[in-house]
This record gives sequence, C-alpha cells and structure tokens, in this order.
Amino acid sequence: MTAPRRYRLDIAYDGTAYAGWQIQPNADTVQARIEERLRQLVNDGQLCKLHACGRTDRGVHARHQVAHVDLSCRIPPECMARAVNAGLPSDIRVMKARAARPDFHARRSAKAREYRYFVVCSEVLPPHLNRYALAVPRHLDREAMIRAAAFFTGRHDFSSFSANPQREVPDARRTIGKFVIGGTGRHVVFQVRGDGFLYKMVRGMVGFLLRVGEGAEQAESVADILRSSRRTARVPTAPSRGLFLWRIFY
Amino acid sequence: MTAPRRYRLDIAYDGTAYAGWQIQPNADTVQARIEERLRQLVNDGQLCKLHACGRTDRGVHARHQVAHVDLSCRIPPECMARAVNAGLPSDIRVMKARAARPDFHARRSAKAREYRYFVVCSEVLPPHLNRYALAVPRHLDREAMIRAAAFFTGRHDFSSFSANPQREVPDARRTIGKFVIGGTGRHVVFQVRGDGFLYKMVRGMVGFLLRVGEGAEQAESVADILRSSRRTARVPTAPSRGLFLWRIFY
Repeated sequence: MTAPRRYRLDIAYDGTAYAGWQIQPNADTVQARIEERLRQLVNDGQLCKLHACGRTDRGVHARHQVAHVDLSCRIPPECMARAVNAGLPSDIRVMKARAARPDFHARRSAKAREYRYFVVCSEVLPPHLNRYALAVPRHLDREAMIRAAAFFTGRHDFSSFSANPQREVPDARRTIGKFVIGGTGRHVVFQVRGDGFLYKMVRGMVGFLLRVGEGAEQAESVADILRSSRRTARVPTAPSRGLFLWRIFY
Repeated sequence: MTAPRRYRLDIAYDGTAYAGWQIQPNADTVQARIEERLRQLVNDGQLCKLHACGRTDRGVHARHQVAHVDLSCRIPPECMARAVNAGLPSDIRVMKARAARPDFHARRSAKAREYRYFVVCSEVLPPHLNRYALAVPRHLDREAMIRAAAFFTGRHDFSSFSANPQREVPDARRTIGKFVIGGTGRHVVFQVRGDGFLYKMVRGMVGFLLRVGEGAEQAESVADILRSSRRTARVPTAPSRGLFLWRIFY
C-alpha cells in the first residue's frame, strides 16, 4: 500500500439533479457521487472523504468548487481527473486534479469565494438558459440595485440575509469584498465575492436586490435590515437555479 | 371561421434532441413540434405551415429563430406565445408572438442573420456548457484566427466552405458583413453575420478557423480555398453543439 497523499480536485457541476454538495442520508448529492467513484478507483476500503471549500444547496451549480481528499493510491495526479470523470455522470466533472501539500485545506486555505447569480428580464427563458438563470418578467432598476448592493460590501453581521435554522454559526459576521452588478440588455449578473458566506446568504441578498430592482424596496433599507440581525419575510430567497459557485481564490 | 392572418413567431430552442429545424419523415424536428402544437390549438384541420428564416441542422441551437404562419384562429397575438408554449417541450419556446403584415416573410424579409459558435480551450467542459460549446484541448492562436476570419468578410462564392450535396443552390455567393472573434480567457466566441448562409457554411468556416488557431493551416489559405470553389477535406465541419442561430435582423 502506498503512503497516503493529498489531492486537490477542482470540480464543476450542474446542480439541477442533486440535493446539493453535501452527503445526506437518502439523497443524491455531488459529494456522494464523487466519493463513490473514488472508492471504486482505489477499491480497498478507503473512505475517500472529500473536504470541499463550500457547500452548495439543492439545485445550485458550481463552475468552480474545490475539494481535497487523502488517498493511498497509485494513480498519478495528472491522470486522476480523467480516471474519476470516466465513472461520473456527465453533469459532474473534475476539471483538474493535482497533488496538494499536506497542509492544503480546501476550505480553510481559501482566501475568498465568488458566487454569480444570473437573471434574464423576460417572461420566458431561451431554453439553453432554462437550468441556469432566473426569468424575471419585469423591468429591473439596475441603478437602484447597484446602490443597494453597495451596502453589502464591508464587514457585517449577515444573519438577516441568511438562514441559520440550527443557529450553528456562532459568529455571523462576514466580509464582502466586492458586489458587482453586470450584464447587458435584459441580462443581469450579480457577482459577489467574500471571505465566506452563511447558509443561503447569496440567495437572500439577491432576493432582496430583486425586490429593490422591482421598486418594492428602497436601496437604503439594506443598511437597516443588516443592523436588525433578524431574518424576516422582507428578505425572500432567490431560486437556486440562477446561482453558481463561480470561483475559489487561494 | 375568422379570416386568416399572419403571425410572426420569435423562437428559441435547444437543438440537442432534434434532427434540426426542418420537417423530415421519421424524425423529430422543431418545426414539426411547433406545427403539431398549432394544429392542436386551432383544431379544425388547418395545416399551420411554418416558414422559418433559417434551417438549422441536427443538434444546432437557436437563441433567435423567426417563423411566420397564416392562421384562422381566435387567439389574439398577445396570447399566442403563452398558448403555444403550454403545449411545447421545455427545450422549445416561443419567445414572442405578434401579428405581422401580410407581406412579412420570415426568410425573404430578413436583412441579415447572425450565428455564434462557442469554444472553450479545455480538455473538459464545465457541465453547464456540455450541450452548448465545443471543448478544444489545445491552445488556439486568437490573432491568427482573427487574420483568417477577415478573409471571409465581403462577397464571395462560399462553395468550398459549405456542403451542397444536391447542388440545390445555383448561386453560392453570399456576403459576410461581420466576422468577430471574441470571448476572454479560455473562451472563444465566433460571431458571424451575413445576408445568408449555405448548408453547413458556418460550421465549415469555424472548422477551418480552428485549424488555423491550432497552427495546422495558414490564415492566408482562406483566400485560396475561397477561390477554388471546391470543398475538400482541408475544411472540417465543426460539431453542431457549439452553434447557435443567434439573431435575425429585419
């Protein structure tokens, strides 16, 4: 048996068919699929436990997710991606596999994460965007959303924009370094980068920004809601289909 | 029975599951699906024949296809899109329906068509692009492709870049108004606009440009091949998955 070594896997997936990244009982998850494939490859009873940078929820996509795994196996790192992909469904791909230093940790070593959320202002989506964008059949006031998004940047307690059912996060402060609203014409792209995100926090922020864009809320309300630290019905959760974990920075 | 009137339908589809736009015996086509749905709606034996601006081949997508149809029916134009969509598979959508003047002709009235072809320079595609882009596992010389594409602009006989099996097109001259190679990083987007395109002409042009990008052909060869007016094995047909009929101009 070879000595265990740490691999870093850069992963992309279409989350439509999965109950999210994280392994759960009786649910089809991305993590379960990849671990199962790794166990097939090493075939000696190793656990092959993946540690990912970010959990993504049911239906959320990843253009770039990173996970590490410690394996005793003879597959050279440069052949690992192809070997894993050969036994994965086509909606999950290892984009790159490499040997990592023993102190590399997919989550703890990450300096920042970027999410993107895609919206098309239209009653109907062109079919190639069906799974990857939200259709909003109204005009959105882009300037108002940009003003509102500016209130998110900096370090804040984001309890009021996230879901924290088991109050499992003792410190809800996170730092948003960048919140850009891009896209042209009917297409709106929300790009948010931060040191970390609470459960459903991106979808809460986007949900509220869409309310601002529709004229149902004032941009300045973001500051008040942040200060309140309490999640209320004023903050809707935007649907998962438009959301991508876009990039992890190390 | 109401008097027949002409409708213009602006249509988008994911071509993956279809044998192209045009009705063919024993094949599932986009045209057949929409006509079948229209016949369901009018339900009185009308033919509901669609006249489209451009035929797309098996597996080619459309972000914007336009067709007209003459119908005697009571459905107001502003309700037509929703009514048709309610009975279409999710990979075909009528984006907009409107009343058209009797002299509007989806193909003849069109002034220009634009196609886009999407390439990612990578061995693996992120799954959300699986159906909508070509993976090219090599570096592409963007400058060389831009030089080569410039030879396509203007009016030329495009026989050597298209397929014309039944020699059904007597005049193979077409005018390309614009050929832009965009995209950033590993993403390359070919945007070509012209007054008309021969069968498989966009995929022939892109196929050759990729050969230029890989260094297998010189940019200047485009001029010689155009002059030859003969299709040879030097011009490969790029796969359909990366191609979108992108926009029709009237």
